[in-house]
Formats: sequence, C-alpha cells, structure tokens
Amino acid sequence: MLFTKVYKQGGKALFVMPKLNYKVILHIMGLLLLFNGGFMLIAVFVSWYYDDGIALQISSAALITCFIGIVLMFFTRGRGKELKKREGYIIVTFGWIFMALSGTLPYILSETIPNFTNAFFETMSGYTTTGATILNDIESIPKGILFWRSLTHWIGGMGIIVLAVAILPLLGIGGMQLFSAESPGPSADKLKPRITDTAKRLWLIYFSYTIAETVLLKVAGMSFFDAINHSLSTLSTGGFSTKNASLAYWNDQPVIQYIVILFMFLAGSNFVISYFAFKGKIQKVIHDDEFKWYFVFIIGFTAVAATIIYFQADLSLSSIAHPMVWGEGESAFRHALFQVLAIVTTTGFVSADYTLWTPFLTVFFFGLMFLGGSAGSTAGGIKVMRHLILIRNGITEFKRTLHPNAILPIRYNGRAIKKEIVFNILGFFILYMLSFIIGALVFAFMGVDFMTSIGGAASSLGNVGPALGSLGPIYNYDVLPPAAKWWSAFLMLIGRLELFTVLILLTPFFWRNR
Amino acid sequence: MLFTKVYKQGGKALFVMPKLNYKVILHIMGLLLLFNGGFMLIAVFVSWYYDDGIALQISSAALITCFIGIVLMFFTRGRGKELKKREGYIIVTFGWIFMALSGTLPYILSETIPNFTNAFFETMSGYTTTGATILNDIESIPKGILFWRSLTHWIGGMGIIVLAVAILPLLGIGGMQLFSAESPGPSADKLKPRITDTAKRLWLIYFSYTIAETVLLKVAGMSFFDAINHSLSTLSTGGFSTKNASLAYWNDQPVIQYIVILFMFLAGSNFVISYFAFKGKIQKVIHDDEFKWYFVFIIGFTAVAATIIYFQADLSLSSIAHPMVWGEGESAFRHALFQVLAIVTTTGFVSADYTLWTPFLTVFFFGLMFLGGSAGSTAGGIKVMRHLILIRNGITEFKRTLHPNAILPIRYNGRAIKKEIVFNILGFFILYMLSFIIGALVFAFMGVDFMTSIGGAASSLGNVGPALGSLGPIYNYDVLPPAAKWWSAFLMLIGRLELFTVLILLTPFFWRNR
Repeated sequence: MLFTKVYKQGGKALFVMPKLNYKVILHIMGLLLLFNGGFMLIAVFVSWYYDDGIALQISSAALITCFIGIVLMFFTRGRGKELKKREGYIIVTFGWIFMALSGTLPYILSETIPNFTNAFFETMSGYTTTGATILNDIESIPKGILFWRSLTHWIGGMGIIVLAVAILPLLGIGGMQLFSAESPGPSADKLKPRITDTAKRLWLIYFSYTIAETVLLKVAGMSFFDAINHSLSTLSTGGFSTKNASLAYWNDQPVIQYIVILFMFLAGSNFVISYFAFKGKIQKVIHDDEFKWYFVFIIGFTAVAATIIYFQADLSLSSIAHPMVWGEGESAFRHALFQVLAIVTTTGFVSADYTLWTPFLTVFFFGLMFLGGSAGSTAGGIKVMRHLILIRNGITEFKRTLHPNAILPIRYNGRAIKKEIVFNILGFFILYMLSFIIGALVFAFMGVDFMTSIGGAASSLGNVGPALGSLGPIYNYDVLPPAAKWWSAFLMLIGRLELFTVLILLTPFFWRNR
Repeated sequence: MLFTKVYKQGGKALFVMPKLNYKVILHIMGLLLLFNGGFMLIAVFVSWYYDDGIALQISSAALITCFIGIVLMFFTRGRGKELKKREGYIIVTFGWIFMALSGTLPYILSETIPNFTNAFFETMSGYTTTGATILNDIESIPKGILFWRSLTHWIGGMGIIVLAVAILPLLGIGGMQLFSAESPGPSADKLKPRITDTAKRLWLIYFSYTIAETVLLKVAGMSFFDAINHSLSTLSTGGFSTKNASLAYWNDQPVIQYIVILFMFLAGSNFVISYFAFKGKIQKVIHDDEFKWYFVFIIGFTAVAATIIYFQADLSLSSIAHPMVWGEGESAFRHALFQVLAIVTTTGFVSADYTLWTPFLTVFFFGLMFLGGSAGSTAGGIKVMRHLILIRNGITEFKRTLHPNAILPIRYNGRAIKKEIVFNILGFFILYMLSFIIGALVFAFMGVDFMTSIGGAASSLGNVGPALGSLGPIYNYDVLPPAAKWWSAFLMLIGRLELFTVLILLTPFFWRNR
C-alpha cells in the first residue's frame, strides 16, 4: 500500500494507526446539534416578540435539531475519553457541516428559503462567517429568520475562537502553533480538545464587544433589532445585514459607520490582544508583531484608497447613494477606511460599490481579499501573521542567495521561528493559491464569467462575501447556478478551516492502515 | 549598519565583502555589444538581399554598437580574471539591459519604430523571448527589420541556455541547482562563468533545430523568409511573427501548424533531453521526471481544451478565420494543442483567439501562463520542475501534518532533495506570485482595466506575449500608456532572469559593506 511504502521510504516503518473512534465523533456531533437547537430557541423568542408569525416553525426546527442531537448522544454513550489527531480533523470538519445542515431547518420550515441548495448556501455562509447571501430582498424576510441568520455568524465566530486557541495549534495547521504558547509542539499525537480557560476568557470579550456595539449602535440611531443583528454580524466578521443596501443604508449617518468601523477593527484583531489591553498589559499590545502590522497595513491601505477616491473616483457614480454629510474629504476617508476594513477583516459589509471607483481600486480590493485579519480573530483569509513571516522569509531568501552559509533565522515577536513552522506557512500559502486557482477554474467551468469566477473564488475562500463582476458589492450570490453555489459553500468551508483540516480528509493516506 | 546587524543576529560576523570589480563588468558589457553588433550585420545582409532600402541604416546601427563595444573593451583591458557572485548578478541583469538598449538602434535609425519607448519595449520583448509587440501592422515593416526582430529572440534564447546551464546554478537561484549536476553546491562564492562544453553542445542542438524547422516549413509551403523568421521565433519560445495574424495566417495549412507545434514542444523541453536523445540514451529521456510530466501536462491540458472546443466553443466565432480543412474534430484538436503549447512553452504564437472560446478556457489559459516550460529550455514562466516539487512538497505537507516526526524527503529524478532547495523553490514561487500581484496593481494604477492588468502582468512576467482583455491574442501592446510599456518591459526582464537575479540588485544589503 502507498501508505506503508511512503513510510518505508522515510527510513523505517513508523506505527500502525489505531481505528477511528466513530462513537466519540458522533457523540460530539450530537452535542453540537443540541447546542445549535438551543440557539434556535433564542430565534424563537425573537420571532415571538416581533410577532412575525413563524415562531412555531422555528420552534419545530429547534426541537427537531435538539431531538436528533439527544438521540445521537444517547446511542454513543460510554465513549472513550481520549482523542487522536485524526479524529480531531474529522470532528472539526463534520462539526461545521452538521451545524450548517441543521441550521437550514428554520429557513426551510418557515419557507423563507424553501430551496435546500439556497438554504445550505446561506447557513454555510453564516457559520463560516462569510456573509455571502442568496437573498434578493432581505428586508422582506421575517425578523425571527433574520435574527437566526445573524446568529449563525455569531455561533460560527465562537467556533473559530475555540478552534484558533485550542484546536488548530494541536492539529499543527499552517503555523497556528505560533499563535498559541500553550501548544505542546508538533510531536503530540494525542489531542485534548479542551475548551480552555483562554477560550472562555476570549468568549467573554467576544460577548462583551457584541453588547457594547449593540448599545452604541442603538444610541447612534439604529433600531434595536438592526443594532443587535449588525453587532452579531460585525464581531464574527460575518457580513449579513438586515438591509438590502448593507451599511450603505446608513450613508447619511457617519457615526453609525464609524462605530461599525471600530468593531470591525477589533473583530479582525487577535482577541488575546484585547484581553491584554483589558488587563492593562499595554506593552504586550504595542509590541505584538502581528497587531502592529495589522494596524500599519490598515492605515497604509486606507491612505492609498482615500487619496484615490478623493482625487479620481466619483463617489456619486456608485449605484448606492453617497450623501456627503460631513464633506467630500471625510466621505472619501470614511468609505476608504470602511471598505479596507470590511475586506481585510473579511466582514464584507458594503458602504459603497468599490468596483465602480477606479480600475486600480478594483484590483486593489481584489488583492486585499488575500490578506485576511489576524490569527486568533474571527477573520478569515491568509492572515497577517502568515504574510509577515512570508515577507520576512522572502527578504531573508535574498540574503541566503547571496550568502548561502550564513545562519539567518526568521523572527516573530522577538523569537527565532523553527524552520518547520516557516515551511508550514509556505506550504499553507501555496495550497491557498492552488485552491484559489482551482476554485476559479471550477466556477468558470460551470459557465460563470472570468471576473466573477476569480472574484467569487477569492471571496468564498477568504470568507469575505462581496466579490467582483456579477458577485460585486451590490449583487448577491443567487445569480450563480446551483452547482456553483455548492462549490462556493465548499470553498467557504475549506477557507474557514485553514484548508488542511478539511483537505486532509480527501487524501487517500488519511484513511489507510486503520 | 543594517547589513552588519543582520550578520551579528545570525550569530557571528561573517566577512567583509570585497569591492565590486566594475572594470570586468564593463569589459563583459563591451564584449556583449560587439557580439550584438556582429549579429546586426546578418540583418544588414538580409536587408541588402531583399533590397528593402534600409541596409545603410542597419549598417550604421551595427557599426555604432560594435564601436561602443570595442571602446568599452579597450578602456577596461587588464581586468582581473576572477568573478564573485555579486558581479554575476550585475553582469546578467545589465547584460540583458545593454543588449536591449543597443538592439533599439536598427528600429530607431530605420525609423520603423522611431519612438524610443516603443523601440525599447520591442527589443526587451525580443531578448526576453516574450514576443509581445507594439507594432500595429507587422506586414508593412521592411524585411531587414523583421529579421532583426526575430533575431533578437534567437540571441535571447542563446543567452538563456548559457544562463540555465552555466550561470544560474552557480548563483543559487530558485532551485536551478537541481538542474545542473555540475554545480559546486550553494557554498561557492567564486563564480566561473564559463561557456562550458555542455552549453556549446546545447547551442549546437538549438542551431540544428532552427535549421531543421526552417527546411520543414519551407517544404510545407512557407516562403523562405517566413520560414527562417518563424524558426528563430519558435526555438527561442519567443513568438514574434512576420504576419499580423501570427500563425492563424496558415489556418488553412494544418501541416505548417503541426511543424510549429513539434518545434514548440522541443523548444519548451530541456535541451539536455534532446542531447540525450541524440546520444541514444533513451532511458535517460523517459525517466526524466520533468520531461515526463511536461509531456503528461501537455497531453492532459490539450485533451481538456480540445473536448471543450469541440463541444462548446464556436471556432468560427473567433475573429480569426478557421477553415476546417481536415474536419471539425481535427481543427478542435489542433487549435487546442497549438494554444496549450504556445502558452505553456511561453512562445505566444496565436492560431485562434482563445479568449473568445468559453469563459472556462479563458481562465484555463490564464492559469497556464503560470506553468511555464522546462528548466534548461528557452521557455519562461515558473517551470514544470518547480511545480513538480511544489506539488510533491504539498502532498508531503499533509503527511507531515498528520505525522510530525516522520522523515519524509521530497524526491526528484529518484534522489532526495535537500531541504534548502525545496525552500528556495517555495520562496521563488511566492516571489513570483507577489511580483504578479504588484505587477497587476501597477498596471491598474496606470489606468489599465482589470482583466488587461492581471493578464498583462501574468503574460509579461511569464514571457508569454498574448494576454487577456485589450492585450488579448488579436491585439497588441501599443494600447498601453508609455509608463505601462516600461513596466511591462521590467516585468519581462525580471521574469526572464528568474526574479532573484534582478531583484537582488534592488535590495539595500546588496550594495553594503563594499
């Protein structure tokens, strides 16, 4: 067998893999369903409170989900306590899929999205915090469902936080080891997926920020319903809005947009940084390599975009109205900052149609889709940390070319990084680019035009939302043929779970030697 | 100083770099000019033979070039014999620039391309074997100049061969060490840029193939002038044609196109493979990893393209006529094979406008611009060898994720590759992608639209020629604003010289500690 052969090539036969513990995998799936059903009950309450007439349907969805969860858990009692890495990949990938599948029930039972493909697209976009939608008229959707839609983002965001601090570093995915000081190093095969104290503290910050944004948005003039929905959507860097025009609906209320800007910035930064800030450890905040460069990148990109918008672009050209409430300069600055943050943090809110500004800004925002937020945030994409290490390694590569014998380590947060981790990150980048190219090719094969294909692939993979062409900021993903919606949902999933977690399940050697 | 600091970081101060030997650098530039002027004399002969009325102007160009070359050589006599690596980078980069600058003289003095920007673009496109042109009506250009234009390709191709076998492996560029068994390993600082026996043998093959293609094309019905020009252009994987419609001019003569297909295939394969084939070492040919996959890729991509052209695309839709001489199936197959080879080998000949086929094929051919031919051929791009190692490393990365302690080497041609070389290649790929993104952004900044920007960047960097949008197969680069022509020429140069050779000159530490 290939597997055995490979290990013999490596010098010696290593070990025979144990059987997968399907019981424990299914038990955790049951737990996740129970948890998801519980969240649906909040949507039931919202539906009942606003009397939108579908509380019963959402209740049924919640009960069905909880029931399946309980049954699964009951039949898988007495599971072993120990998990191996291989089970970890399966749990994470299928966890997201089970959540997305059960999350479709409120849409389907309430008949707001009766089509299963569309409903699955919407939930996958929700839990992966992408924010791409197939809804043509968001404002006609009952409030209970709109709330459920925003809630899928927020639940997804919770999942991402625990993934980043407690699971991915153990699975050894693309440099995430760097992020966590708790990691036992790449040699551990035993996985202890604990919801650590760190994760709990970060959840508290996530929750508090959500409350804070809701209060601020309400005070600034949003309705309470819009405020809570946009907060759920901002902190998870999702992007679902309750308005068809997204945040452009509030173009005449700059304060609202500045509040969203602030929280997009926080949601796209490492939550551990927020934790240090609250603890008063300001030195740790300002000396964090990734935070520093995340900040510098945003300032730099905003300066470029604002200058070009001010001098070259006609803001009124955009099909979304742009009242210059506080003058043209402020408007150019605000839209630049808003869109830079919306794309970099992969939130994907829209204050204006950036594809109508200038050709340069179209390429510019397309390029930003590959940046991504910080590791340890809810943002998707490649992430600032990886780019930093890629750039530093790139510079060092020139020095290495000139002086092949010099020892030139790559530094991050003041420490030299192990060569294996740099290798991990280079590998991640290349796999990301390959996924993007294959992503675009498959879209094009399904009959989607050139710009829409490459924009849609970059945006789905980076969990951004708006893209280019027919998937530009003022359009939605309903234009895609059904197969392309499934493909887009698949790209969202692999992008969200840092590629390796999902794609490793598609390799033949993962399933060998059980 | 930064430089010193870096080396102290690395553990110890290494060495103080010697002064650059500018005398030897200028001496070699003089030699190159003399050589270039000599080649111009062949164009003088062609001009005289066809009596196109500009033999005198080309003679002046040749004499000026030779004169400057001799003066440079005279004033730099008594140079040291030894070259260091740093001088190697300068000689290669400025060698190409000096060739391109002096190569403009025939265009300018004959007033066929009086504008310096345009003339420089055309010569850089020539010596880098890109084949992008700013000429709107090629057929109205005097024969002497057309021949000079094709000759710049062929001279560039000669340069590439000596670079690949004798220079780049010594400079330690992006895995080119792998290609050469003669390389003394990455530790050598002393450079012996010898035109080795290997290079001489490969030049003989290059020359013989050119003669062979000329004879075959003439026999198949081309005029002798067209035959020799297209042969010069094919073997160098350049792409300049003597016809406005490029190879589509001969769409009703499939035999001519099949001959060009054969020689594009040979020019895009490693010339060392041809050498082995002539020596009867067939085992070495069929067991060469890169040759095998180069072949498989071309067969596979042609099968995909031919199927789609046959079932989906309307060949007559293309603005270039497609008489179905031998039936529709043969026509679909031939255009598929022709365009796949034209893009993969970065020749850039055009038999049909692939951007008019289907959206999928547009994305497909755009993706192929990133593949490139074989190392040791005259083709540009990333190259098959690097892709193979990237793919093998990618697969291994999954295995490494699952089993962090396993020793899993990457193999190439049956041998395990040093980790440093894999690192080199990963670094090369990332730098290539970064150059592409910055390339596209700069085009867009100069007012070029989205598709033209990304197509133009990919095509210039990969030395292909035709791109997308306004730079599609049936258009030319004259539509670009002057600054964008310079930018495109720069991208051609860095792409041709494997990025590091040129870009290292732009780093501050290259010039420190003299």
